[in-house]
Amino acid sequence: MSLWKALEGARVLDLAQPMRTGMPQSPSHPPFRMVLERRHGDRVRPDGGSAANEVIVTGGHVGTHVDALAHVSQDGLLHGGRPAADVMSHEGFSALGIDAFEPYVGRCVLLDVAAAHGVDTLPPGYEVTAGDLARAARDVDVREGDAVLVGTGWSRLWSSGEDFVGVRGGAPGPGIGAARWLAERRPRVVGGETVAFEHVRPGRGHTTLPVHRIMLVEAGINIVETMRLADLLDTGAREFVLVLNPLPIAGATGAPVRPLALL
Amino acid sequence: MSLWKALEGARVLDLAQPMRTGMPQSPSHPPFRMVLERRHGDRVRPDGGSAANEVIVTGGHVGTHVDALAHVSQDGLLHGGRPAADVMSHEGFSALGIDAFEPYVGRCVLLDVAAAHGVDTLPPGYEVTAGDLARAARDVDVREGDAVLVGTGWSRLWSSGEDFVGVRGGAPGPGIGAARWLAERRPRVVGGETVAFEHVRPGRGHTTLPVHRIMLVEAGINIVETMRLADLLDTGAREFVLVLNPLPIAGATGAPVRPLALL
Amino acid sequence: MSLWKALEGARVLDLAQPMRTGMPQSPSHPPFRMVLERRHGDRVRPDGGSAANEVIVTGGHVGTHVDALAHVSQDGLLHGGRPAADVMSHEGFSALGIDAFEPYVGRCVLLDVAAAHGVDTLPPGYEVTAGDLARAARDVDVREGDAVLVGTGWSRLWSSGEDFVGVRGGAPGPGIGAARWLAERRPRVVGGETVAFEHVRPGRGHTTLPVHRIMLVEAGINIVETMRLADLLDTGAREFVLVLNPLPIAGATGAPVRPLALL
Amino acid sequence: MSLWKALEGARVLDLAQPMRTGMPQSPSHPPFRMVLERRHGDRVRPDGGSAANEVIVTGGHVGTHVDALAHVSQDGLLHGGRPAADVMSHEGFSALGIDAFEPYVGRCVLLDVAAAHGVDTLPPGYEVTAGDLARAARDVDVREGDAVLVGTGWSRLWSSGEDFVGVRGGAPGPGIGAARWLAERRPRVVGGETVAFEHVRPGRGHTTLPVHRIMLVEAGINIVETMRLADLLDTGAREFVLVLNPLPIAGATGAPVRPLALL
Repeated sequence: MSLWKALEGARVLDLAQPMRTGMPQSPSHPPFRMVLERRHGDRVRPDGGSAANEVIVTGGHVGTHVDALAHVSQDGLLHGGRPAADVMSHEGFSALGIDAFEPYVGRCVLLDVAAAHGVDTLPPGYEVTAGDLARAARDVDVREGDAVLVGTGWSRLWSSGEDFVGVRGGAPGPGIGAARWLAERRPRVVGGETVAFEHVRPGRGHTTLPVHRIMLVEAGINIVETMRLADLLDTGAREFVLVLNPLPIAGATGAPVRPLALL
Repeated sequence: MSLWKALEGARVLDLAQPMRTGMPQSPSHPPFRMVLERRHGDRVRPDGGSAANEVIVTGGHVGTHVDALAHVSQDGLLHGGRPAADVMSHEGFSALGIDAFEPYVGRCVLLDVAAAHGVDTLPPGYEVTAGDLARAARDVDVREGDAVLVGTGWSRLWSSGEDFVGVRGGAPGPGIGAARWLAERRPRVVGGETVAFEHVRPGRGHTTLPVHRIMLVEAGINIVETMRLADLLDTGAREFVLVLNPLPIAGATGAPVRPLALL
Repeated sequence: MSLWKALEGARVLDLAQPMRTGMPQSPSHPPFRMVLERRHGDRVRPDGGSAANEVIVTGGHVGTHVDALAHVSQDGLLHGGRPAADVMSHEGFSALGIDAFEPYVGRCVLLDVAAAHGVDTLPPGYEVTAGDLARAARDVDVREGDAVLVGTGWSRLWSSGEDFVGVRGGAPGPGIGAARWLAERRPRVVGGETVAFEHVRPGRGHTTLPVHRIMLVEAGINIVETMRLADLLDTGAREFVLVLNPLPIAGATGAPVRPLALL
Repeated sequence: MSLWKALEGARVLDLAQPMRTGMPQSPSHPPFRMVLERRHGDRVRPDGGSAANEVIVTGGHVGTHVDALAHVSQDGLLHGGRPAADVMSHEGFSALGIDAFEPYVGRCVLLDVAAAHGVDTLPPGYEVTAGDLARAARDVDVREGDAVLVGTGWSRLWSSGEDFVGVRGGAPGPGIGAARWLAERRPRVVGGETVAFEHVRPGRGHTTLPVHRIMLVEAGINIVETMRLADLLDTGAREFVLVLNPLPIAGATGAPVRPLALL
């Protein structure tokens, strides 16, 4: 059977948060701004046609996005022990940038930690543990090369900007133990719903990024952040196809993406 | 069979051009610029970790992108006769923006006009005609709701910036006849390799956009532009799955996308 | 005597706040961001030289800036009863933009309301009244065509970002009575230290802008905002030369400026 | 006599080029773009008032601007032998940035080389020599700490974008000999009308910047570029007051300025 026929009945779920001026995002990155430049009527061609357009200012870690391995270094070294200074310039990163991430189309496992706790959304300061992941993975196996998403239900708070970002109140996410549990299974990519795929304690912000270090620097596993998993969590699906194709921005440390789940 | 198993052997072809400062693009839109903001070493946490990031300035019609229906108006009206003035504001378009485009995952037909002419790349000022499309479609049928890509081979010129843009030399693309041929088949979306999905005569630039009017305003069919089809053309494939998921920028007239072909 | 000799002994006071990423500004405008693009060493010429540069994203009402008359409209009309719609386009304002403001070099009067109250800085929610201005103007006359600055001492709070902006706590500034007192004297330009030259009640933000309406729309008097007057207030000077030369951004509703006082 | 009285009869000449999208500028820097964000009518307050604003994307070396000493390095060193690497970060330059430039208000000498050659505008590839400067300075002395402007008449070509920039055709400017002549006189700042204060040979672009090295790195003298001197040249004035107050952008390698001549 041809591929397009196999996909004909598939349900396509959009896993990206909408991007608009003022949306919640990390204060460490350039604020997203979309502004119409030409509006219809500004410059009308002799035949009565006109074209509207816009200017967009953003960052590589704004909205739903994928972290490149080059995003984080430890003691001056990137993944594989490569000195960061050797590959950085005004053209971005000549290695390990987001353009080095091959678009992913393949098996994805959703570990719904919120459901495992019998809640829709985990509380702000909750640390997802290795035990949580093991429990959520009871009925589905995680294989090498998979994508693995960790459900916290946090994307339900998107419209409550400050709470969502969690600089003051914190945000749920994997602790060091959970990160090691994930890394051991050697997935291609991991992802979650919060601004940063980390356990953020109330009032602490992103003072350290141990999970980023483990994933990006030590294990060479990319991270997807700020995913809109709410609808997917509601379906109860645990295994599906994920399409993950971040913009190919040469040399960038991350890039926006509109991930799709095919069920 | 589960979807992910059906896709396991699939070949994934990246149909986006890489985005970098200085890449070829329409002079009518904000020039793309990616600049590293923090480099490793700029702000090192006490534990020796550091995170690099970037600022990105771009437009909705820069690099490989999808045109929203709101992009073009005729005599002040958008698709469906809706007055443009009613839906434009500082927040963009409240209707017919790129966020109104449902991500597309489905059958795609490639009409390789270059191959039909026995060449790798059509000449700069070549007008693709309805006859060209009919000939290229001889062995594959175009169905309602499909995606239809028109191959000109033009993406092979990407690295020759000025020639690619074609402001002086022109660029090959569909004329009015070809646009009507396409619109009659009622595809969901059409696409090509050039900066604008139009026939651009040498020295004329984009003085009128008749194909945009027919597609976006009259027929309500979105357009993908600046696609990197070269590798896909080389495979000889004529029917495959296209994934088309532009960034969900609320109210924008277009958005960058990294389209994938699954073969 | 030549002008440059007359100015030889003059004291030059810088009345601009420094511009840097994260500085306090109105949440209604694009956040200022300055990012180095090329650093030394990124692109070294054969002779060993290199040039560093930056990208700047900002707005016309960010940092110390001058409001153009086109900034505010009332019932669709700009100053002089001109319909705003007639002069707005993707090129900005074809009339009453900041490029229509002639650089000002001339007499300036400082009305120090804080000093008149015997304090360094007026309290957050304080409304400057016509009586306050009259008292502060007791020893200096305000003449037609002058620049008039109203001292509140608020620029001393610059380093306390949130307090300075005053969205929650409010900010001192002229009420309607004070605005009329000023407008009657027909100065060329008025200015102050806060984000907006208005009386901002705690918790209210800039819900209405009556002083902007009186000055810009009714009287045709430009406004300078976010000035750093602290040092000037400390000198006790009441009459001096003001140099006010906003960037000549064609069609903009305002522009950054580095005003100087010559004493 | 008070300063403002001394200045009352002064003629104020604006020495800045207007800033607008598409204006001529160096291709090495971010293209200037000003876009209206809110237009009148977009968000009308209950009282009928509305405020328009804009987004501005620019660089520190775009339009009329001042080069900071940090702009250029030689063999990794900035002025005074300071290693560039020691003072660069995501916050810009912690020393020798444009914020380290004290606003200048003082004597300025105009050396009109075009007039000395009996022409309005020097030809594109003309190298201004030490002899040219000596001849132009015959009737006016250059003193230590002065500002010195070199007139080429090139600002008359502003509206012919490509010619003005001179990437292909070249631009007149000081050669190494002229630069040494200037540096020996120890002015505070020097300036000119072209995109770069250099002699640009046809077809060469800014492949080397010897005058920048001599001024910024060796002599510690700032440079003003892209000045609009045409009107000033036409007055025949050779000695006047220059006001030079670039935007105080913390850590930037340059900043836009609207210089004024007071005659």
